[in-house]
Amino acid sequence: MQQPWRMQLHLAEREEKTIFLKLANQIIQEILSGRLRQGTRLLGSRTLANELGINRKTVQSVYEDLEAQGWLVSKPRQGTFVSEHLPDLKLDSSSVTMISVQSPTESHTPQEAIKNDGVPDTRLIPYELFSRAYRHALIKVTRQQVMGYGDPQGSLELRQALLNMLSMERFIQTTLEHICVVRGSQMGIFLAARVLAKQQPKRQFIVVEQWSYPPAVETFLSNHFQIIQVRLDQHGLNTDHLAELLENHAVAAVYTTPHHQYPTTVSMSMDRRLKLLELSKSFDFYIIEDDYDHEFHYDSRPIPPLISLPSADNVIHIGSLSKIFAPSLRVGYVVADLDIIQAMRQDILLIDKQGNAITELAIAELMQQGELRRHTRKMRKIYQGRRDFAVKTFQRIFKDNVEIATPAGGMALWVKFKLSYRLEFAEVLKQLHIDSEYEFGSLFQGKSNYFHIRFGFAAVSEEEITQIVQMLYQALLDR
Amino acid sequence: MQQPWRMQLHLAEREEKTIFLKLANQIIQEILSGRLRQGTRLLGSRTLANELGINRKTVQSVYEDLEAQGWLVSKPRQGTFVSEHLPDLKLDSSSVTMISVQSPTESHTPQEAIKNDGVPDTRLIPYELFSRAYRHALIKVTRQQVMGYGDPQGSLELRQALLNMLSMERFIQTTLEHICVVRGSQMGIFLAARVLAKQQPKRQFIVVEQWSYPPAVETFLSNHFQIIQVRLDQHGLNTDHLAELLENHAVAAVYTTPHHQYPTTVSMSMDRRLKLLELSKSFDFYIIEDDYDHEFHYDSRPIPPLISLPSADNVIHIGSLSKIFAPSLRVGYVVADLDIIQAMRQDILLIDKQGNAITELAIAELMQQGELRRHTRKMRKIYQGRRDFAVKTFQRIFKDNVEIATPAGGMALWVKFKLSYRLEFAEVLKQLHIDSEYEFGSLFQGKSNYFHIRFGFAAVSEEEITQIVQMLYQALLDR
Repeated sequence: MQQPWRMQLHLAEREEKTIFLKLANQIIQEILSGRLRQGTRLLGSRTLANELGINRKTVQSVYEDLEAQGWLVSKPRQGTFVSEHLPDLKLDSSSVTMISVQSPTESHTPQEAIKNDGVPDTRLIPYELFSRAYRHALIKVTRQQVMGYGDPQGSLELRQALLNMLSMERFIQTTLEHICVVRGSQMGIFLAARVLAKQQPKRQFIVVEQWSYPPAVETFLSNHFQIIQVRLDQHGLNTDHLAELLENHAVAAVYTTPHHQYPTTVSMSMDRRLKLLELSKSFDFYIIEDDYDHEFHYDSRPIPPLISLPSADNVIHIGSLSKIFAPSLRVGYVVADLDIIQAMRQDILLIDKQGNAITELAIAELMQQGELRRHTRKMRKIYQGRRDFAVKTFQRIFKDNVEIATPAGGMALWVKFKLSYRLEFAEVLKQLHIDSEYEFGSLFQGKSNYFHIRFGFAAVSEEEITQIVQMLYQALLDR
Repeated sequence: MQQPWRMQLHLAEREEKTIFLKLANQIIQEILSGRLRQGTRLLGSRTLANELGINRKTVQSVYEDLEAQGWLVSKPRQGTFVSEHLPDLKLDSSSVTMISVQSPTESHTPQEAIKNDGVPDTRLIPYELFSRAYRHALIKVTRQQVMGYGDPQGSLELRQALLNMLSMERFIQTTLEHICVVRGSQMGIFLAARVLAKQQPKRQFIVVEQWSYPPAVETFLSNHFQIIQVRLDQHGLNTDHLAELLENHAVAAVYTTPHHQYPTTVSMSMDRRLKLLELSKSFDFYIIEDDYDHEFHYDSRPIPPLISLPSADNVIHIGSLSKIFAPSLRVGYVVADLDIIQAMRQDILLIDKQGNAITELAIAELMQQGELRRHTRKMRKIYQGRRDFAVKTFQRIFKDNVEIATPAGGMALWVKFKLSYRLEFAEVLKQLHIDSEYEFGSLFQGKSNYFHIRFGFAAVSEEEITQIVQMLYQALLDR
């Protein structure tokens, strides 16, 4: 177990950020291929850096990140090791169920779910840059696109920009043919539901986590699927429970938000991810991976999405640009195998023919010029500050009456109110929303006596956060 | 029959264009209500103008327009009369079938139908104006739309602008609640299909004209409807044949493009329109009216859409802004009863949540400032010139080998080639398309030996039209 690990890599010609990703990716591949076995000690960061001719800090930060993601474990005074919990760790089947079961009939209407339970601050859009990009896009459209209609799969420029981003920042190695531009992640979910209903008419079940994103659930139901719920805990979707469900149901797909689970914000652990992929192969179902706010992860680099992992053949990956700039831009994308993408392309011709080419070109330009990355970096700092502030403010004002696990990323907190649920709470929140310019997030209530709020912190300033939490306190407790 | 007709109207406070519409509308209402009976002679234009205190030319042009639309008949030296053919004219059941039956399995794939068979010239977009409007929209979004998500039914600004346009220019009196913004007319068709499939599960048939818009047909099929075809002639959809079909089929809706039939370009006559509405009441089906290029009518004012006629309770009216500026903007709208609009709203939340708010605001500004009207007026002149030029060019080059009825409006010609159909024609056209920057329109072939091309003239200059027609001639005849 103590054999030092030698990496065959020639990285020197690439720039710093790419080295980081390349090294991280290579280590993951080595672990998954079995060449780097569980418990193996890695070379010290100084040694490895010297061997590869790269900066020692890069190696250290790769190690830290892979540790945060669950691939590596660091032991004081001993070094960095491949985690013992990979890839076949038996899950603790008694893992605490974090939240009580919510039956599908209790699910929220779509309207309720479009509240601010995690949207970007559109007041901070760099509108001068956008304005210029739109201007350029308009000129391009008038000069080039003689006949008017474009590719239903999305403009080439945007798909090219997405391809670069997915490769550089998310470990996703794909091609233009596997990318389909859609109108927000909602349309990705809708297309996935329609395509699967057509391709797998005999598999009528979709598995969702016991608490899930209501518009997704509605979308599956409206495409004639039945919903079954899998348990959820602090490591994400419970794959043991899923395995049980799969024995008894013809499952077409599992819908999941592994990066920051909706609504509970937990990140799916790496062992669960690998188990989920394994199950998807043995039971031959698709995983619909809704990676809706990948950019906003604060405590480590973002965890690689399911589709970037080896053997992710059955993953329909849905991403969104709505969370970076503004939801009203309605631009998202799907990455999946060619069968799925081709079927989606056909459906797009029937649903809305193609996307808004001018917006697609404008965004492609912002991506190519690095403006998207710059804006994301800026927003990430702001949102991280708001997350920390929001957690502290809830704790300061509500004291022991709330329970919050600080989320590693995302744009929302999952606040559990340790108050017996009373019907009038919903009323109170509703009224507060009407009387105020703020929204309070989505209210969730399970079968327990407690209730939760998914509170979107990204779109509100610190001052606004304080106001909202105080108003909540006065409405719920101080009367 | 000779009693002079006195109109009770007070128009003086409105501006010229509105007087025109108001007078025209009032005459139509009077005819439909039965107060102005068939064969009645109207007051002379001078007398009526004096009575109403308006310009005589306005009265004359209203009379001319209503004549072109089939409401009135002018007899030399006798005056202007209400048409004898309204409202109960028995149709000539032996009316020539203009084109042979095309079975649904022969229908074109959606890809083939997105060729240039009638798109605007996007090279002529006023992109400076657009650019400014986008800039203003971006500022508005960043200042006002704090939380990001908007109304699934479309931004208020755009619906308000549409409401004004529909009222001022199309006789459609409706309210904001009855208007739903969608992503192009294709999405209107898709939503109509989904909503009707849900609301009328027992009515599994959709009637389309014997030649129809292939993506619409595909959309109905993909929503599990069966298609039946109704005959079509030079007056539009044959309502006698429709009546027969209705006796034997549970029809959920009739899909039609009455203004300029797709692909044949004929306008549905007023008597057929009234009969269609009457049938929709007695057999309780919806009419899906795809009014995709309303703005471009050259030989008279546009014919009032079905939904503007009295007793149009069952009409789902679909309009598009794609044909005015650029298809890639993806903005259209639906006007229908509240049940339908509410159901569409629910579906939009599942399909793509809402439209592109920035584009919607930009277009609303252009509409409010009159830029849309100015641009339309400008394009109408250009397109009319291109229509006339295209007809002449086909006739000059192909001589007796083609047959074209100059369309009263729209953006395409229906060219019948009097050549025995040979399989290689399709091949030839395909190759021409690949080798050239132009597209030739969609190729249609029925069971007859002839073939047709729906040739889009709007997006190509006179020089390009000549080139295309010459290339076609060389490819098809001169070899």
